[in-house]
Amino acid sequence: MAAAERIAALREEMKACGIDIYIVPTSDFHESEYVGDYFKTREYLTGFTGSAGTAVITMTEAGLWTDGRYFIQAEQQLDKNVVALYRMGEDNVPAVKEYVDRNLVPGGCLGFDGRVVNARDGEEYEKLVEKKQCRLAASQDLTELIWQERPQLPENPVFILEEKYSGESVGSKLKRVREKMKEKQADVHILTSVYDIAWLFNIRGGDIPHVPVVLSFAVITDEESIWFVHEKVLSEEVRAYCRDNQISIRDYQAIYDYAAHITAEKKVLMDKNIVNYRIYKSLKEEVSVIQDKNPTELMKAVKNQTELSNIRSAHVKDGVAFTNFMYWLKTNIGKRELTEISVSEYLQNCRSSQELFLDISFDTICAYGANGAMMHYSATEESNAKLEPRGLLLVDSGGHYLEGSTDITRTIALGEVTREEKFYFTTVCRSVLNLAGAKFLYGCRGNNLDILARGPLWNLGLDYKCGTGHGIGYLLNVHESPNGFRWKIVPERSDSCVLEEGMVTTDEPGIYLEGKYGIRTENELVCKKAEKNEYGQFMEFETITYAPIDLDAILPEEMTKTEKRLLNNYHKMVYEKISPYLEAGVKEWLKEYTREI
Amino acid sequence: MAAAERIAALREEMKACGIDIYIVPTSDFHESEYVGDYFKTREYLTGFTGSAGTAVITMTEAGLWTDGRYFIQAEQQLDKNVVALYRMGEDNVPAVKEYVDRNLVPGGCLGFDGRVVNARDGEEYEKLVEKKQCRLAASQDLTELIWQERPQLPENPVFILEEKYSGESVGSKLKRVREKMKEKQADVHILTSVYDIAWLFNIRGGDIPHVPVVLSFAVITDEESIWFVHEKVLSEEVRAYCRDNQISIRDYQAIYDYAAHITAEKKVLMDKNIVNYRIYKSLKEEVSVIQDKNPTELMKAVKNQTELSNIRSAHVKDGVAFTNFMYWLKTNIGKRELTEISVSEYLQNCRSSQELFLDISFDTICAYGANGAMMHYSATEESNAKLEPRGLLLVDSGGHYLEGSTDITRTIALGEVTREEKFYFTTVCRSVLNLAGAKFLYGCRGNNLDILARGPLWNLGLDYKCGTGHGIGYLLNVHESPNGFRWKIVPERSDSCVLEEGMVTTDEPGIYLEGKYGIRTENELVCKKAEKNEYGQFMEFETITYAPIDLDAILPEEMTKTEKRLLNNYHKMVYEKISPYLEAGVKEWLKEYTREI
Repeated sequence: MAAAERIAALREEMKACGIDIYIVPTSDFHESEYVGDYFKTREYLTGFTGSAGTAVITMTEAGLWTDGRYFIQAEQQLDKNVVALYRMGEDNVPAVKEYVDRNLVPGGCLGFDGRVVNARDGEEYEKLVEKKQCRLAASQDLTELIWQERPQLPENPVFILEEKYSGESVGSKLKRVREKMKEKQADVHILTSVYDIAWLFNIRGGDIPHVPVVLSFAVITDEESIWFVHEKVLSEEVRAYCRDNQISIRDYQAIYDYAAHITAEKKVLMDKNIVNYRIYKSLKEEVSVIQDKNPTELMKAVKNQTELSNIRSAHVKDGVAFTNFMYWLKTNIGKRELTEISVSEYLQNCRSSQELFLDISFDTICAYGANGAMMHYSATEESNAKLEPRGLLLVDSGGHYLEGSTDITRTIALGEVTREEKFYFTTVCRSVLNLAGAKFLYGCRGNNLDILARGPLWNLGLDYKCGTGHGIGYLLNVHESPNGFRWKIVPERSDSCVLEEGMVTTDEPGIYLEGKYGIRTENELVCKKAEKNEYGQFMEFETITYAPIDLDAILPEEMTKTEKRLLNNYHKMVYEKISPYLEAGVKEWLKEYTREI
Repeated sequence: MAAAERIAALREEMKACGIDIYIVPTSDFHESEYVGDYFKTREYLTGFTGSAGTAVITMTEAGLWTDGRYFIQAEQQLDKNVVALYRMGEDNVPAVKEYVDRNLVPGGCLGFDGRVVNARDGEEYEKLVEKKQCRLAASQDLTELIWQERPQLPENPVFILEEKYSGESVGSKLKRVREKMKEKQADVHILTSVYDIAWLFNIRGGDIPHVPVVLSFAVITDEESIWFVHEKVLSEEVRAYCRDNQISIRDYQAIYDYAAHITAEKKVLMDKNIVNYRIYKSLKEEVSVIQDKNPTELMKAVKNQTELSNIRSAHVKDGVAFTNFMYWLKTNIGKRELTEISVSEYLQNCRSSQELFLDISFDTICAYGANGAMMHYSATEESNAKLEPRGLLLVDSGGHYLEGSTDITRTIALGEVTREEKFYFTTVCRSVLNLAGAKFLYGCRGNNLDILARGPLWNLGLDYKCGTGHGIGYLLNVHESPNGFRWKIVPERSDSCVLEEGMVTTDEPGIYLEGKYGIRTENELVCKKAEKNEYGQFMEFETITYAPIDLDAILPEEMTKTEKRLLNNYHKMVYEKISPYLEAGVKEWLKEYTREI
C-alpha cells in the first residue's frame, strides 16, 4: 500500500471521528528520540524513514516536517504528489503549530494520540484549539485502525547493570532524586523518560533498536518507588533485585490509572516536555504540577569516576575495532569488491569481536561520495554504492559496551582525493581540534564554544545544518540531554546547559556538498576541571575517541602551528592507547597514520 | 565631612522616618548610566567615585556593591571601617536584594527614592517587603535632607541635530515608533531614556557630563508627542522646531501627574527596566502596562547609512588626533616631564582641534604602569603618575563630533618593555583581531562570538572581568544597548541582542595584572552583511577605528599567519585613511608604525 492509500484510509477514520487535522509525530509514549517499529506511524503513513519528523494530515493536504539533516533524504522518499515537504528552520516555512493554526477552521477538530505528544505540546494545542473555538480529540490512535500488520509493542528481557559498570547504587541514586524532590517541595515525581528510568534503576533492556532501554514508567514518592513495566520482561533475578531495592512493580498500562488517583493535595514534579499528554490529563485538576526538568537528567549526564574510567576503556576497544577496520579498508580497497553495506558489516564484526560488546549504538552511516552529503544517510539495497579506490567514505558508527557507548565518525580517503576534498577535510579537522582544545571559564554553555568548531567553516561561507555535538548516554541513547554544542539555543532541544565536569559531548563538525561528498570527523570530549584562580574555575576537554584522522586527506600547510600540535598530540595519544592491542601489521600501519606532520 | 559623618547623618533621617534599610543606587530619574553631579548621592555618601555601584545603609552597617571594573578603585577609596565592599559576581557575595532580604527584620521598613530606582527593581523590593510583612518608603530622597551643598539639577541648552547628521527626520522616527505601538496594541508609550528621547527628537543637550542629552521625559500617543522638559533650556529656535514637528512641551516634573491621569482603559507601553518606580506607581491600577523594550532602543542602535558614513568620517578625524598624540608621546617621552594628566590634556587638545568636535565622549583613562591594571582608573592629582621612558601606558579615550562619537583604547610602549609585557600585548592584539575578523551567520549574538576575543586569554588561564565590547551611541552615551560582546548573558544589561547590520560595537579585550600593568586595545566594529547563500545570511565586521596598534610591543612570532595578515591589513587601512591629514613628520612615523610584520 502506498502513502496515498494509507493517507486516504486515515482520512476515512478522521471523517468518522469528525477530525479535520490529524498530527502524527515521531514518538513513543516516552518522548524517546528513536522509536521501536510499533511506533513508526509517521513512517508508515508517509514513507519517510528518517529518525525525526512530524506528519500533519488534513482532508486535502498532507505535510511532513523535518530538519536540515533530512532534507535530501525526505525529498527522495516522499511522493511529492501526496506529501509536501516542510523544511524546518528555513525562511517562510511555517512551524507545525503555525500550519495547524492557519488551517484549522473555526469549529473544527484537531486530533492526535495523546500518548505520543508531550504535555507541553498538548497544552499548546489545547490553547490553539480553544482560541479558535475548536475541539481537541486526543484519546485515540487512528493509525491503529488502519495499520493491518502493525508490529507488536516490544517486550524484551531486562538485565541488571552491575555497580562496577554504573558506579552508583540504585539506593544512592534514589536518595539524590528524593533530595531534589524535597528541595522542590514535590510529593510525587512522575518519570517517563526510558533513559532516565534505566539510569535510575541501573537496568537495561532492548525495547528500542540500538537503545538498550525498557519501555516503562516510574513514580517516585518519599516512601515508594514504582516501576510500571510489562511484567513478562522481568526474570526472577530482576524481580528479586527490585525487591532488594524496594522497587515495586505494576503493569505498564497502569500509569494512567495511577496518575488519575493521585490525591488532590499532592504536588507532582514532572517535565511536561517529556511526560505524555494523556498522563498529564489523567491528573486531577487540583493536583499541582511542579514543572521542571527531571532531576535524573543532569545526574545521568554527569558521569561518575567509575563510568568515566569504563568509558575510556570502551573507547580503547572501539578504537582498536575502528583502526582494524580502517587498516583493512585502506589495504583492500581496489583489490576486491566492497560496498557501503559490506564494509559496514565488516566494521560491525570488528566491534563485535571486542570484549564486553553488546550491540552497535545506532545504525551505521557508511556513505560513499555523494551519499556522504546526506547527513544521516543509511545505505539500502538500492542505494548501496560500490566503493572505488578514490574519493571519500564517511563512516559514522558506534558500539554499546558494558563499559559505555561510543559514537565516532571518520571520513576516509579511499585513494586519490582532490585538492578541494583535502582542503575541506583539513578545515573540518581544524574545527574538531579547535573545539577540543578549548579552555574556558566554568559557566560556559555549548553556545559559547560552538564558534570554535564552526568558525573555520563560516569563514569560508559554509555551515552544517545541525548542532556541533551532543551528549552521549552510558549504554543508553547516543544522543543525551542536557549538554551539547550548538550556536543557537533551541529551547525544546535541551542541549545548552552549563558544561559540567564529567559530561561527555561529541565534537562533530562537517561539510556536506550536495551531489559531491560529505566530510565529518567526530570525537567525544570529556569536560574536566582545569586550574582555578582569581578569574574563576577554568574547564577543558579530554578527547576519549582513539582512532586516526586520515592523514592522506590532510594539507598541513593549511593548519596553524597550534592546530598541527593538537593533531600531533592527538595522534600520539591514539597510538599509545591502542597500539598494544593491535597485530603487528596494523600496528605498523597505525604508526604511519599517526605520524607527526 | 567624611563618609562616617554623612552616613551617621543619613541614619538620623532614616530613624526619623522609621526606615531600617536605605538603598542609594547610582542613577538619575532616567536610569542613565552616567549621572550629573546632582545625582551623585552614592558617591557623596561613600566616597567611592566609580561610575557604577549601589550603597545600602542599615542602622549598623553600610555596604557598597560594585563590579569587577572597580574592585581595586573601591578598595582604595572606601573607608573600610565605615563602608564594606561587596564584590559583585564573586563567589559567596550576596546580591543587593539578597542582602536586603537577609537583613530586613520582619515589620521593618525599606526605603529608597522611587525616582532613582526602576519599576522592575521597585516591584521586586515591593514583593520582598510584602513577603516579610515590612513597609516600603519610596517617596522621599533622604540624601536631599543631609546634603547641604548639593549641586543644582542640570538645565543646559538644547540644540537641534540636523538631518545631515541624524539621517532621519523626527516625523519618520515617530511614524516608526507608532507602528511598533500599534503592533503591540499600545495607546500610550512612556519613554524616559534620555538617550532614546534625544535620538527620537533629533535633539541634543548637555545635562550629563560628556553625554549630550537633555534631562526630560516623553510620552507618545497616536495623536500626540509630549516632551516633559525644563522649559528654560529651550531656545526660541528649538520651540519653533518642536511646533513644526508637533511636539508639545510640558514641564519636566509634570510627568508624574500626567501618568496619574492616564485613563483606566489605556494600554501603556513602557520598559520597566528604565521607567522609574515613581512614574510606574503613579499610574492608575487599572491601566494595563505592556512591558517591552522601548522600540527606539533597537532603532537607535541600527545606524542608518548617513550616520554610518558620518561615523566613519568622525573616526578619521579621531584617528588623526590620536595618531598625532601618539607620535608626540613617542617622540617626547624621556625628553620632558610628562604625567598621566598632562598627556591626557595634550590628547584632548589634539581632538579639539578637529573640525566638528564638541567634547570628549568620556573622562579619559590615561593609566601608566600599575595604574593600568585598574580598568576604569581616572588620574587624580594624588595618583597622577609621572611617565618614564619604559613600560606601558594605557589610554582609553574618545570624542563627540557632530558626525558621531568615538571610543578608542591604545596601550603604548613608552620605551623598553619586558618580554612578558610584549607577549601579553600580542595576546590582546590577537584577541582584538580574531573578533574583528569573525564571519558568522545572521542570528548570532555577542555571546556566540565572545570567545573569539576571550579565547587567547582563557588559553593562558587569564580573563578580564567585564564584557568584551559594548554598543556605542551617535553623539550620545558611549555605552549603548542592546548590542555587545559578553560570554554570559546578564539579562539586566540588555547587551546580547542579535547582531544586526548597522550596529556599532566596541572590541576591547584586555589583560590587567594588579600591581603590574594593564593592556587594552579597543577598536569599533560596524556589523555588515556578507554573502547570503543556502546556509543563510552571513555577517561580518568592518573596523572603523583608525590608529596604529603599537608594533613596538608586538611579538610577530606569537601570531598566526592569519593574525599577521589581519594586523597588516588593518595597518594598511589606517595609513590610507589618515595619512592624507597628517604633517610630513607624523606621516613618516605612521608609515613606520603601520609597516607589515
